[in-house]
Amino acid sequence: MRVAATTELNLASIRAAQRRIATMIHRTPVLTSTTLDEQFGAKLFFKCENLQKTGAFKARGATNAVYELSRADAARGVVTHSSGNHAAALARAARLRGIPAHIVMPDNAPQSKQASVRRYGGQIVLCAPTIAAREASAAALQAQTGARLVHPYNDLSVMAGQGTTALEFLEQVPDLDVIICPVGGGGHLAGIAVAAKAINPRILVIGAEPAGADDAARSFKAGRIFPSLSPRSIADGLLSSLGELSFAHIKVHVDDIVTVTESAIVASMRSIWEVLKIIVEPSGAVGLAAAELIAPLRTGARIGIVLTGGNLDLDKLPWQREAHE
Amino acid sequence: MRVAATTELNLASIRAAQRRIATMIHRTPVLTSTTLDEQFGAKLFFKCENLQKTGAFKARGATNAVYELSRADAARGVVTHSSGNHAAALARAARLRGIPAHIVMPDNAPQSKQASVRRYGGQIVLCAPTIAAREASAAALQAQTGARLVHPYNDLSVMAGQGTTALEFLEQVPDLDVIICPVGGGGHLAGIAVAAKAINPRILVIGAEPAGADDAARSFKAGRIFPSLSPRSIADGLLSSLGELSFAHIKVHVDDIVTVTESAIVASMRSIWEVLKIIVEPSGAVGLAAAELIAPLRTGARIGIVLTGGNLDLDKLPWQREAHE
Repeated sequence: MRVAATTELNLASIRAAQRRIATMIHRTPVLTSTTLDEQFGAKLFFKCENLQKTGAFKARGATNAVYELSRADAARGVVTHSSGNHAAALARAARLRGIPAHIVMPDNAPQSKQASVRRYGGQIVLCAPTIAAREASAAALQAQTGARLVHPYNDLSVMAGQGTTALEFLEQVPDLDVIICPVGGGGHLAGIAVAAKAINPRILVIGAEPAGADDAARSFKAGRIFPSLSPRSIADGLLSSLGELSFAHIKVHVDDIVTVTESAIVASMRSIWEVLKIIVEPSGAVGLAAAELIAPLRTGARIGIVLTGGNLDLDKLPWQREAHE
Repeated sequence: MRVAATTELNLASIRAAQRRIATMIHRTPVLTSTTLDEQFGAKLFFKCENLQKTGAFKARGATNAVYELSRADAARGVVTHSSGNHAAALARAARLRGIPAHIVMPDNAPQSKQASVRRYGGQIVLCAPTIAAREASAAALQAQTGARLVHPYNDLSVMAGQGTTALEFLEQVPDLDVIICPVGGGGHLAGIAVAAKAINPRILVIGAEPAGADDAARSFKAGRIFPSLSPRSIADGLLSSLGELSFAHIKVHVDDIVTVTESAIVASMRSIWEVLKIIVEPSGAVGLAAAELIAPLRTGARIGIVLTGGNLDLDKLPWQREAHE
């Protein structure tokens, strides 16, 4: 039985996504640390989407989008543009379903992320590293193949799939007071906010963004989208601008978007590696950096932090001198 | 209610340990990876004791030993010698119980491991980096304070606590065909073998050891203990010689002990970091290195690999050039 494609982002469509993708993704663990709890004066819960299939939460949205397609639509394949994690996730989902995946990637995408897409059988088309070039290449491929464009975040099926992070997190830790999630294009944050608020309207949902790529924070304050013009951050997964669809839900369901410095991101990343013993990429650590701002305001709160991904080049770590040439 | 101290290593004492320590340790997750399964032609299950409290399985044994003590004995504190992970685990267990922990460490122990002991309130006494010097210092401290010596492995309470890894693993994945565990002093392997074989005598229990520190493999083959004379391995947690008590159980319950090269250890460690996105120290990766030898002999087997610890200096990774001066 195939449930109809997502036409609205709400608790029902997110629950449908959860059922659809359940056997194809990991139920990721939630980790805790007494050391970090003492340091923050709060009880922290880390939802480890860095341990998700393909090393990022992107597996949730991509798998939902691919498995929602009718057989006829699926046969024409899928296409996307992505700096990496969504690309690998879509390639994997397409391979699981046995359909082609065309992946437009900026030509400066890390080798490790390109290799990951290839390992999952994705067909890579490189383009200039601008959002305009990516979108143009993807549109051309789509016209040529008839493939379904699965946008990395501005897509209801993708957002519904990504919202399943919150369903799972609240099954594992029902009484969270706060959920903090990094925001790039905003699909994950939108899905999480819609799911979490539907389950418990009193949960505070906070977006966390690098100060050097603060389009979401500025858009949230202004109530209209400011595109990301020349974002700069080590958190290379969070450089995208908000999408119209993700912003529409973020505006309504998210409580605040806070920004963090580059040094806070690197320190949080190192802290997660050292204390939790897991690998997060810089983007994945932005939630913990934001928790430093939130925890003092809510002493003793139960704070859920979404660690979004763990894909990075192990030969270029931000605390090595060579990484900062 | 306090259960009596461990006087025998068997399923009952290991179950008693599990009940005793349950609220003080993590029930660590079991991770899987399609990528590694395809690579090995087997189904691999990783028991993540690197995500255990203090970053290593040692928390299990140390906590059991500390909480078995009568109130009067506990008041005199505990003492041990350890290259690091047992030291931190004992310091933490003692702090939980509110008693002193005297920790003898070799003066070349990594700063990160010394810092960890201090963070848990352990009192460090440095000594020369030989087993003889460690044992002498610990004995002197014990005579002076009346503290209970909690040996890192040659101790029934410690082994019973460490055997709880297997109980938990088999609760999480009941139908394992093989369990592979690194072997240093042999306490963890002994506890795991006793527990696993009592639950399912058909499980193959394999010890994994660096070729450069192969005293356990040689002892196992000969049926008597060959001490580790000048062990050399990047797996610094596995340099100890087998203890009489651990060997007595390994001899009976372990099926084989295999040895692995240094390059296989580093490659396995990197593979765990890259694919599973978790941090293991070199010693912790030795089980995966051994799985490369075991998997081809048992195609399609369900192989449980114990990842024992994740404590290492993030500024000195084995794949960085500077680490190999």
